[in-house]
Amino acid sequence: MPLFQIKFMPENRIIEAENGTSLLNAAAQAEIYIKSGCGSKGTCGACKVVVLSGDPLVTGTGNLTPDQISKGVRLACQTLIQGDMMIEVPPESRLQEHQVLMGDVHKGLLQESEHDLLEKFGHHALATKQRISLSAPTLTENTSDFARLNLELRRVLKAGDKPIHIPLSVLKQLPEVIRNANWDVSVTLTDINSEFTITHVEPGNDNPPYGLAIDIGTTTVVVYLVNLLTGEMKDQQGSYNKQAKYGDDVISRIVYAVEDLKNLQEIQHAVVETINELIDKILSRQTLSRTDISCAMVAGNTTMTQLFLGVNPRYIRLEPYIPTMTTVPSVPAREVGLHILPEALIHCYPSVASYVGGDIVSGTLVTDLANGEDIILFIDIGTNGEIVLGNQDWLVACACSAGPSFEGGGITFGMRAMPGAIERVIIDSETLDVSLKVIGKLPPVGICGSGLVDCIAKLLGAGIIDRAGNFQMEHHSASERLRATPDDKEFVLAWAHQSGGKKDVIITENDVKNVIRAKGAVYAGIRSLLNMVAVDIEMISRIIIAGGFGNYLNVHDSIQIGLLPDLEPELYEFIGNSSVKGARLALLSQNAWHEAEELGRKMTYVELSVGATFMDEYVSALFLPHTDLSLFPSCN
Amino acid sequence: MPLFQIKFMPENRIIEAENGTSLLNAAAQAEIYIKSGCGSKGTCGACKVVVLSGDPLVTGTGNLTPDQISKGVRLACQTLIQGDMMIEVPPESRLQEHQVLMGDVHKGLLQESEHDLLEKFGHHALATKQRISLSAPTLTENTSDFARLNLELRRVLKAGDKPIHIPLSVLKQLPEVIRNANWDVSVTLTDINSEFTITHVEPGNDNPPYGLAIDIGTTTVVVYLVNLLTGEMKDQQGSYNKQAKYGDDVISRIVYAVEDLKNLQEIQHAVVETINELIDKILSRQTLSRTDISCAMVAGNTTMTQLFLGVNPRYIRLEPYIPTMTTVPSVPAREVGLHILPEALIHCYPSVASYVGGDIVSGTLVTDLANGEDIILFIDIGTNGEIVLGNQDWLVACACSAGPSFEGGGITFGMRAMPGAIERVIIDSETLDVSLKVIGKLPPVGICGSGLVDCIAKLLGAGIIDRAGNFQMEHHSASERLRATPDDKEFVLAWAHQSGGKKDVIITENDVKNVIRAKGAVYAGIRSLLNMVAVDIEMISRIIIAGGFGNYLNVHDSIQIGLLPDLEPELYEFIGNSSVKGARLALLSQNAWHEAEELGRKMTYVELSVGATFMDEYVSALFLPHTDLSLFPSCN
Repeated sequence: MPLFQIKFMPENRIIEAENGTSLLNAAAQAEIYIKSGCGSKGTCGACKVVVLSGDPLVTGTGNLTPDQISKGVRLACQTLIQGDMMIEVPPESRLQEHQVLMGDVHKGLLQESEHDLLEKFGHHALATKQRISLSAPTLTENTSDFARLNLELRRVLKAGDKPIHIPLSVLKQLPEVIRNANWDVSVTLTDINSEFTITHVEPGNDNPPYGLAIDIGTTTVVVYLVNLLTGEMKDQQGSYNKQAKYGDDVISRIVYAVEDLKNLQEIQHAVVETINELIDKILSRQTLSRTDISCAMVAGNTTMTQLFLGVNPRYIRLEPYIPTMTTVPSVPAREVGLHILPEALIHCYPSVASYVGGDIVSGTLVTDLANGEDIILFIDIGTNGEIVLGNQDWLVACACSAGPSFEGGGITFGMRAMPGAIERVIIDSETLDVSLKVIGKLPPVGICGSGLVDCIAKLLGAGIIDRAGNFQMEHHSASERLRATPDDKEFVLAWAHQSGGKKDVIITENDVKNVIRAKGAVYAGIRSLLNMVAVDIEMISRIIIAGGFGNYLNVHDSIQIGLLPDLEPELYEFIGNSSVKGARLALLSQNAWHEAEELGRKMTYVELSVGATFMDEYVSALFLPHTDLSLFPSCN
Repeated sequence: MPLFQIKFMPENRIIEAENGTSLLNAAAQAEIYIKSGCGSKGTCGACKVVVLSGDPLVTGTGNLTPDQISKGVRLACQTLIQGDMMIEVPPESRLQEHQVLMGDVHKGLLQESEHDLLEKFGHHALATKQRISLSAPTLTENTSDFARLNLELRRVLKAGDKPIHIPLSVLKQLPEVIRNANWDVSVTLTDINSEFTITHVEPGNDNPPYGLAIDIGTTTVVVYLVNLLTGEMKDQQGSYNKQAKYGDDVISRIVYAVEDLKNLQEIQHAVVETINELIDKILSRQTLSRTDISCAMVAGNTTMTQLFLGVNPRYIRLEPYIPTMTTVPSVPAREVGLHILPEALIHCYPSVASYVGGDIVSGTLVTDLANGEDIILFIDIGTNGEIVLGNQDWLVACACSAGPSFEGGGITFGMRAMPGAIERVIIDSETLDVSLKVIGKLPPVGICGSGLVDCIAKLLGAGIIDRAGNFQMEHHSASERLRATPDDKEFVLAWAHQSGGKKDVIITENDVKNVIRAKGAVYAGIRSLLNMVAVDIEMISRIIIAGGFGNYLNVHDSIQIGLLPDLEPELYEFIGNSSVKGARLALLSQNAWHEAEELGRKMTYVELSVGATFMDEYVSALFLPHTDLSLFPSCN
């Protein structure tokens, strides 16, 4: 098979690719990650590249305009290599390669609230390590190698009635290891469900045992390296989920995964590879070996969890939306192929239902929501808005499909919260002049979720749009920022010469309508849940917001557009990536992990598609802030 | 690589073999199994074949005489193919291919004594199967597939606090299986250590769960198919351990196995293949599938157990003779490659020490030795004599190396107890005429262990040998049966024209000395153990003899030659293959299995190579019956 040279610009990076390779895959081979929202079906238009030279086979042009096509713009997923080429990948088509933003992540000791929780549950990690000195056998003291080790381990661990198991793979290594180590060994064990299991025996050393807390998001994956002895977060690393090439959201990934077993294995491999690269980076930075990692705790939504384990997600997507499991069997790392101790157990947070997953249970544990009388509302906003409401006596949860707007999908210049993204907008209501705050203080490339919320509140405030999101062209005919195109109406946030992509950064009426639908879904979800348990908004003591989007959210703006309930801003709290925090907590505390498993069972899942409540609420919420203004007294 | 045609006679069977293949391996390829006692080192001379045509590469001739060589006799392990050949494999070189004799095996219900034991321990098998009818999920009753199954299983199993686990591999199949089965499924579970594990889910059916009791002997392997619901032994099959090609005894197999990892894997594969062929035969006969077999219980000596699991046996052979483990981790069948349910657990009987293995613990359980006040002596005689002595209060065990004589090794016409083997000998002390009883009433081919014991007692009785085993040539110069050769003295048991091998079947002085050494070792072992705990022979209430050899043993003759203690014959009991019987019992009873694990821990192993006791006893026992005739009053 001939290999062709493909040069990527502006990196000037050359790779060799086989005949028929898509530019999307070739770019990935060059470690240039291109957005893809539709699983390479050619429909989303996210993977635009510019062909500078070469003559590829174009299998589709999707929604490209004749003008774009004439300028060499192609969809990377629909363009197949059949000779040498030079390609430009524009910034707006890139999954930026900077490190994923970690929110309020802080290395070292636990945050005060987390520390309090660990104190409460008790520090007793899911894995342990012991240094053991054995006496060498003789003809008269001739117990077997394992019996000898077991006896001393029982003494040191004060094991009492707890059995100590040894997997065959570890047993096979035992005789040589203990003799080579001259009977002075370090033994790593899992310690869970009232039993120990030996996962590793090595020459005696005093390294502490480490665990990994892993948050598998649909978009990003975050790994914490946790010292299981001290609780310290020793290192962390995040990146985009390599499954992105099969689609932006869980639905397109499910569609891809269920096609055949090969696809399922491929999409499983993508996330495992994502995690392994993060692990490898951490290990090399810390000069640790994979055998130093003795357990892992994973939190992810239901689909991410099933895909991580290679469990077919087919019935998650088909009515009545049934996941294969909610509690998840712990599996040795070797079964999944994670780069840690092969026999180390991987635990996954339990889910509640197909669309309320382990990430939400993990977050709920961190909020400590289920341990007081106060009614707390916990919201995680991403593509789905997942909502948990309750206190020590009851817990209800639901999920509402917000669509990808808040994560940059379906928005003309939408992008994730990363350098170059507009996060705050100020509009002069007289001149319609615009001031922007951009993440990383760079020229703006696009607008992220929190920027959108802010922008729409300001468009409304300046009278550029009405409460239904319609552009008010007649009121502002003076400004060239507000303009009509044959297809839509748009407002220019940044001019081409100011922007990172050298083109006007705009928001269209269609964009605004998309955001209204998204915020309407979240608010309707909250209202439906409250209705279900007959709780008034005023009875809520605290609102906790999780997720990367939440980190940058402005409460005032969110209330103005009707995304969040109109409560005092001081009742709101942002906790960032609560999913990985909960994973860390469960790694460090047997009781926390048991509580997590209990939480999964205690939450009552409310399926919003049953009955008319949600749809009624949704329709009412398709205004800014709402059709019922009495719900938003502060907006009058 | 060119292939050559190799024809084996008298089968007239042709196979194709590569250049350089040994005749030993080529014969195995033709499914003709040739004896091999030295692991293909060319030293034991057991694999003699006759080259009828062809010109092989002969790499060694071992102990072949010039006369044999001139007649085309070659050692199969030292003869490499380099062209077409025709080979004759004489009967005495064959591991006979008839079904291994099963002793007193009886299909169907348990023997009375075993039935009593099962009653005592209680019938509660290590695996179970349940038929479950589930309701289909709806939008409002939308628990996950596993939660739905788990809930109903808990109810049906009355599981109480017992957790029900599901391995990832079974979970992955679950959604399609339950839907294809229209929510009516049969679930197979292991039930051990206070937890259930689901090993299989299939469309609803009413087949019972089956288990396998497996005895892995150094020489033979026996498999019972056991209905776990009724306890019935539904079928059984035995054959030679395919490891025989790596040597006859455990030591030569260890020597082979420890050479490198490839050898270890090869020798593990050989026994797994042996068992799999037995399983396949049983399954096809019973029209069952491998998924009907939900657990397996293995009993074997320490080396056989380690080799079965692929655990390197290196330190079993090196002083101070340390096995890797005595209690054995249970492993899923897929880890070993056994043809049963992949997730079914394989349990192995615990060992006591390197040379007192799981087969002895299994036998001890069947003898119920540890549950009364009477002192019982339990002996399993094979290549090693393993001896257990004790009662409810104490248990001691030892092993003495008897050498291979009783199994036909090192004896000119020695063979295993199979058709064609002499098992009884009568010698007229006047004429030295001989009458023989041959297994299968065939012309004699050789002599088996029990035949040897009988023969030596009769040689002694007829004055042909003295108490030291020396041939008394001068007393019997009249008979042509007693004759001297340049190398040895010999007695003809059967003339060539009467024999199956068309040659004189003889016993030599050297053979007699070998048997004396073997019987001396067993008796010295018994005496050493008695000395150790200060128990007189007369205090023994019962002597239980296990093993294939024991099945045919004549107590009177055994006492006459000093193999067994001089006690009333009615105190002796033969229980056949107690190893597989104990495996069956443990399959059917959780309590029996716990007691087995307890037994392994309770037995005190006595290392006979420590101190002078054994050696003194051994030297004293190198006479017929003994130097101290007061120990054998009935022989005077």
